[in-house]
Amino acid sequence: MNHDAPTHDAGAGGHPYRTVVLLSGGLDSATVAAWAVHQGHRVTALSVDYGQRHAVELTAAKRIAAVLGISDHLVIRVDLAACGGSALVDPAIAVPKDRPAPEIAAGIPVTYVPARNTVFLALALAVAETRGATAIALGINAIDYSGYPDCRPEFVAAFARLAALATKAGVEGRPVEILAPLVRMSKAEIVRLGLDLGLDQSLTTSCYDPDEAGRPCRRCDACRLREAGFTAAGLIDPLVAGCAG
Amino acid sequence: MNHDAPTHDAGAGGHPYRTVVLLSGGLDSATVAAWAVHQGHRVTALSVDYGQRHAVELTAAKRIAAVLGISDHLVIRVDLAACGGSALVDPAIAVPKDRPAPEIAAGIPVTYVPARNTVFLALALAVAETRGATAIALGINAIDYSGYPDCRPEFVAAFARLAALATKAGVEGRPVEILAPLVRMSKAEIVRLGLDLGLDQSLTTSCYDPDEAGRPCRRCDACRLREAGFTAAGLIDPLVAGCAG
Repeated sequence: MNHDAPTHDAGAGGHPYRTVVLLSGGLDSATVAAWAVHQGHRVTALSVDYGQRHAVELTAAKRIAAVLGISDHLVIRVDLAACGGSALVDPAIAVPKDRPAPEIAAGIPVTYVPARNTVFLALALAVAETRGATAIALGINAIDYSGYPDCRPEFVAAFARLAALATKAGVEGRPVEILAPLVRMSKAEIVRLGLDLGLDQSLTTSCYDPDEAGRPCRRCDACRLREAGFTAAGLIDPLVAGCAG
Repeated sequence: MNHDAPTHDAGAGGHPYRTVVLLSGGLDSATVAAWAVHQGHRVTALSVDYGQRHAVELTAAKRIAAVLGISDHLVIRVDLAACGGSALVDPAIAVPKDRPAPEIAAGIPVTYVPARNTVFLALALAVAETRGATAIALGINAIDYSGYPDCRPEFVAAFARLAALATKAGVEGRPVEILAPLVRMSKAEIVRLGLDLGLDQSLTTSCYDPDEAGRPCRRCDACRLREAGFTAAGLIDPLVAGCAG
């Protein structure tokens, strides 16, 4: 493999990693799950049902966990829709369409879910404590999503410091590691990594606004970034192969 | 008032605080809510329904918000019971009874809910973002609950650093403050502060294992610490006044 994701064959003390992977059903988190399985981690997949508009993501997460052989797959419900404030949980806010790449990268979009990655990591930390996990892995990356404050390496580092202070394991000198192997990769590199790992990318979903059959809109920020990533990698997204462009 | 809680009459720039208060229905969080209201903060109360065994807490939280004149009271459901691992969410684990104070303070008890305060603060951060709040306040204290890693001042400081990096407001130079006015107080000091603030302490509930009518067991760690706090303050807990001792 010619990618720059770090390798983690063994955790502290030479034991294999026991890792909680945040699995949304999207391309990035599926790639992280495939990576963790490939590295020999014992994986618990965690999907969060946070009141997103569509259940397509959770269905995709279940299929991905199944094909990767991850039998321990938890779904935790949290009613972030009670907060409102995001196009992904509030039907009153429209998902933006047809925005050019520089605009996507420039600011914080209405698809930003308040404190989402903080909430997801906190839930993963709770699961890690009860499972005795040594690590949490998630698919955030800072390159294509620079508009999201909670996708940056410094956010990951701050959460790792918090986790070391927040938990029984941390207090006892065994803090949970936070692994973000994609954080500095481009979308094209993530696409290639998934391909190298043998991930069936047709099972993943990225669209913020799929139709009732789960087909991507190809116009929202997530669809445009995904399609640009496949193109830059010299590939065609299996989700749109055969569709009219 | 002769207590040592910090005063916060105004937020950054001299504007009044707009504060999300984590309100569990217990004595400590109710005291913080009364304190924030007394300081002139515009308060949003947030209660988390996390699959705890009894609904007594949420009923108490609603009554406390009402008497304090807090009309903005959110309840967010999160299914922490899906993780298991704590006597407070897992009916298979018994709540310990009749433990002496030194034992209560010494280790991490089975009533510890994994990563609970991390999850609660993460949810409060989501609410703070959507409400445009300047602060989050919570009733943790490190004195009587030294067995809980996520009740210490260094945990609060680490969360504040995380919040500054995690959110739109933080990125734009207006990080949410994390206020923990009780963190270094004894239970007796908290009891007196509540009394000074005119809080109706009979509305609060602390018991880990109340009966069906919501009456405290008087034998779990929380009941024992509460009763010792009232005694040390030279007072009788209105919840047990008139009961056989």
